Amino acid sequence: MGKKIVVVGGVAAGPKAAARVKRLLPDADVTLVDQDSLISYGGCGIPYYVSGDVADENALRSTSYHMLRDADFFARAKGVTVFTGTRATAIDRQAKTARVFDLATKAERDLPYDALVLATGSEPIPLPIAGLDLDGVYAISDLHQAIAIKDRIAKGLVSRAVVIGGGAIGIEMAEAFTDLWGIETALVEFREQLLPGIISASLASMLHKHLADNKVAVYCGEGAQAIIGEQGKVVAVRTAKRELPADLVICAAGVRPRSQLARQCGLEIGARGGIVVNERMQTSDPNIYAAGDCVEIRHLVSGKKFVAPFGSLANKEGRVVADNIAGIPSSFPGSVGAFIMKAFSCCVGGLGLSLETARAEGFDADCSYTAPSDRAHFYPEQKVFCLELTFDRRSRRVLGVHGFGAANDALMARIDAASMAISQGASIDDFANLELPYAPPFATAIDALNAAAHAADNLCDGRMTQITPREFLDWVANGALHPDWLVADIRHPKDAAKAVERFGPGRWQAIPYDQARARYNEFPRDKTLILLCNSGTRTYESQLVLRAQGFEKTLVVGGGSNFLSRMGADWL
Amino acid sequence: MGKKIVVVGGVAAGPKAAARVKRLLPDADVTLVDQDSLISYGGCGIPYYVSGDVADENALRSTSYHMLRDADFFARAKGVTVFTGTRATAIDRQAKTARVFDLATKAERDLPYDALVLATGSEPIPLPIAGLDLDGVYAISDLHQAIAIKDRIAKGLVSRAVVIGGGAIGIEMAEAFTDLWGIETALVEFREQLLPGIISASLASMLHKHLADNKVAVYCGEGAQAIIGEQGKVVAVRTAKRELPADLVICAAGVRPRSQLARQCGLEIGARGGIVVNERMQTSDPNIYAAGDCVEIRHLVSGKKFVAPFGSLANKEGRVVADNIAGIPSSFPGSVGAFIMKAFSCCVGGLGLSLETARAEGFDADCSYTAPSDRAHFYPEQKVFCLELTFDRRSRRVLGVHGFGAANDALMARIDAASMAISQGASIDDFANLELPYAPPFATAIDALNAAAHAADNLCDGRMTQITPREFLDWVANGALHPDWLVADIRHPKDAAKAVERFGPGRWQAIPYDQARARYNEFPRDKTLILLCNSGTRTYESQLVLRAQGFEKTLVVGGGSNFLSRMGADWL
Repeated sequence: MGKKIVVVGGVAAGPKAAARVKRLLPDADVTLVDQDSLISYGGCGIPYYVSGDVADENALRSTSYHMLRDADFFARAKGVTVFTGTRATAIDRQAKTARVFDLATKAERDLPYDALVLATGSEPIPLPIAGLDLDGVYAISDLHQAIAIKDRIAKGLVSRAVVIGGGAIGIEMAEAFTDLWGIETALVEFREQLLPGIISASLASMLHKHLADNKVAVYCGEGAQAIIGEQGKVVAVRTAKRELPADLVICAAGVRPRSQLARQCGLEIGARGGIVVNERMQTSDPNIYAAGDCVEIRHLVSGKKFVAPFGSLANKEGRVVADNIAGIPSSFPGSVGAFIMKAFSCCVGGLGLSLETARAEGFDADCSYTAPSDRAHFYPEQKVFCLELTFDRRSRRVLGVHGFGAANDALMARIDAASMAISQGASIDDFANLELPYAPPFATAIDALNAAAHAADNLCDGRMTQITPREFLDWVANGALHPDWLVADIRHPKDAAKAVERFGPGRWQAIPYDQARARYNEFPRDKTLILLCNSGTRTYESQLVLRAQGFEKTLVVGGGSNFLSRMGADWL
Repeated sequence: MGKKIVVVGGVAAGPKAAARVKRLLPDADVTLVDQDSLISYGGCGIPYYVSGDVADENALRSTSYHMLRDADFFARAKGVTVFTGTRATAIDRQAKTARVFDLATKAERDLPYDALVLATGSEPIPLPIAGLDLDGVYAISDLHQAIAIKDRIAKGLVSRAVVIGGGAIGIEMAEAFTDLWGIETALVEFREQLLPGIISASLASMLHKHLADNKVAVYCGEGAQAIIGEQGKVVAVRTAKRELPADLVICAAGVRPRSQLARQCGLEIGARGGIVVNERMQTSDPNIYAAGDCVEIRHLVSGKKFVAPFGSLANKEGRVVADNIAGIPSSFPGSVGAFIMKAFSCCVGGLGLSLETARAEGFDADCSYTAPSDRAHFYPEQKVFCLELTFDRRSRRVLGVHGFGAANDALMARIDAASMAISQGASIDDFANLELPYAPPFATAIDALNAAAHAADNLCDGRMTQITPREFLDWVANGALHPDWLVADIRHPKDAAKAVERFGPGRWQAIPYDQARARYNEFPRDKTLILLCNSGTRTYESQLVLRAQGFEKTLVVGGGSNFLSRMGADWL
């Protein structure tokens, strides 16, 4: 027999590391333990299982060729010995043994190892409120919880649900309840927006509106203060402002690394609570590796350590673990935090830093707002989506790309395109030249991502000056913020007329784009002209024309009416 | 008035350069001339206009906000003076003037310039055969030809069409005729495959089969020898093997740079017939720039100059021209040849070099064949697509990615993802770690592109040894090629049974994947085992198991039955 390898944790990184190291070292003795009875499942599929899109939980546990990935399968197909219902309770780093405890028989024993892999995952952050133990209150911590939730719904026991937490899992669960089961669903998020710290306030507004349009009642800036029960069963969730009736409550306030075992045996733990690893995925003990949700990795834009609980990264890290145990010097450099998620008929996603997070990290950041078509504008069924490209003014480095659009692959494709570029520190100019394939059924001749870079280039060089869609909507809500502003609306007269009528010619004036060169003198010179078009492209051109005619105070509304209407300005 | 800028050519690069340079230099005097009456149209949209997907040719000539891009629009909106129907006939580089000739009035005059931009595009390569002047014979050289073709079809004059040329335009035109108009269509290509020099023989087989499945009669390896007419009207196309009746013939044998004007005034012309430019898009005369189909650019993988007649590149190059004229030192480094095209319900695309072209360029190239799902395998409506990732064995550099799949954005997204990486010389290992966003409705946890890199890694390190799907099909057609080969089919027994019955147990033996570790001794040790599964993934694992048991001669069929069946092996 060759090396003895013990893997703790059996969802994503663990099975990946175990299976590959057995392939690389066919005579190794590879053992995987997990305290759960279910292993190697697609955790990210849980919302689709609850919704009914995926009929059977076994689908989440099967290979693409319909083999159930249980202990027997791992023995038969992978040559890996799996003990389920078996908890690792202690590690003796001197003796190189892992103590494991059989939850059924209560038997304890020590598994000797040459290399140990910790893939202990993450756990839900417990809410500091009463009522978590009531019947009907769940976290999405594992597949068992999902099965119990779906069972409860299928039995007709759920007519009103409250989701606590406006992160990805909370939003996906809200969709699952509403879309396919018709459950009256509310979502509360204690911070001021959905996906806080992940996307900008602008994109969060679009997501918020889209959830509301699909009958999810969203309450941001309202933390759950208590979960209220009657006779042991949940009946409501209370916030500072209201009481939301509920016969089902999902706690989805985020996750944290499950690193107790590592901490207990003296491995280094980082500031975020995750296990510290090097690029080979080795912990502070070179015989112990760690991968997946339980580790801290490097953010490739900020350079700082962070926790990224993504199944895709867990698989990559697990592969690097296996390589290094087998003597192949692979490395995992870190992450740009790329993500995408569906919400009803739309999606939101991105990578790198948003404008807010970039500024918080100390960058001299700015952001271009564009609303490109996802195919040639003359091609049937093209759709507009919204992109934000965040960049550093000093270095011209692109820091992040985020967007909101229809739930097709158009946004994902641009995140895919940006990934290598952002991880390698590419500039606005690299993005302007980034070569993306074009044919009318798939993209535009000037691709969405190129156009976003062009806008950033124009901003960075001072040719375009803008206000953000958020700033514009704040002014619309309260004109007193900037009494000297006047909207110069260059959209089609039909579109502009509605707004001119609503706000009056003292605040809103219309001259179509192609007449701006001839009629610029109709605009007053003592006001700041707020230039509005559909996407922010034509107003950039008009800004240059006006500037050449001596108009010094003009601002383009980034993203134009396409941004504004998706953020809730239904009067546009 | 500021600089005088003259632009010759008004389709893509020309209008882009003209409009941007006017934005950058508002007091410049920018003039654009084109010999055609129609300018600034989406040439790549022509097949969709002919098919009827795009109802009106004006849609191809309009902005996304429905303004017709004619000379008047350019004057009004862009501040650019346009002369249509005006041919540039000579350039006096000493005097810095361009002589232009008004096709209607026959008037000639000299336009003085400080900077001249040549965006003269490309022209169809004329076929060296008789009959090109017959009524009913067209090239897709401009929008007029497209209008004439559609007019002819709409009048009911076309029931049988022949397309000469199996490149992108030929294939798109064949689809346009067949799909929406029900015209009986044949396509002839004198080389042995569709998209020769662009994609591999394997992917070309898939495209060929898909066209045939959609009722296009495809004849590869058959050049058109003559176009036959009666009373001045086309009636057939003759090849070495057959005569194809036709009342419409499209000549689409490729394009070449239209560089006569540049040649005539002594500018340097490259080996491919395109105008030589530097990274600033300057010709050998620093006051003359060139951009678009008429130039040669650097291929970022081979390092050689080539011609890439893509509208997307034309726009990028036009932008760089404008920047440099205005004193912004932008550069255009070259191209990886990224492309995508729809063919009925499928698409084909890629970038960089295919295996064949990489070997011709002198690389020690190999290729991984994978057949991943485009979404999580448990997600409803996931589809398999086929990827080829070509790499250099010595340097581990990824040289190209090409694929075939459904006509959604899944393949495009992976080409997008690979673009920056390939242009910067990324390795297999960079691709293995390439971070792509994952959620079940959009991708798989181990993304298609990562999986392709993993397979390449296993090949490059000698852990996996394979035969190509093409080699396997050749052997199926002629077992005598390799009398010692035996297929070890590890697919589901139901799938394998069909092939075992067809070929007999002496050539085809079945043991399911998950039983290979237990039952390997049932395979004979004196044969070369040809391992077959659905995608080439499980057979890789089985190969390692068999090798560990002393089976030295095993080969994985790259891409598995998913490749083979799409290439025409409908018996699988």
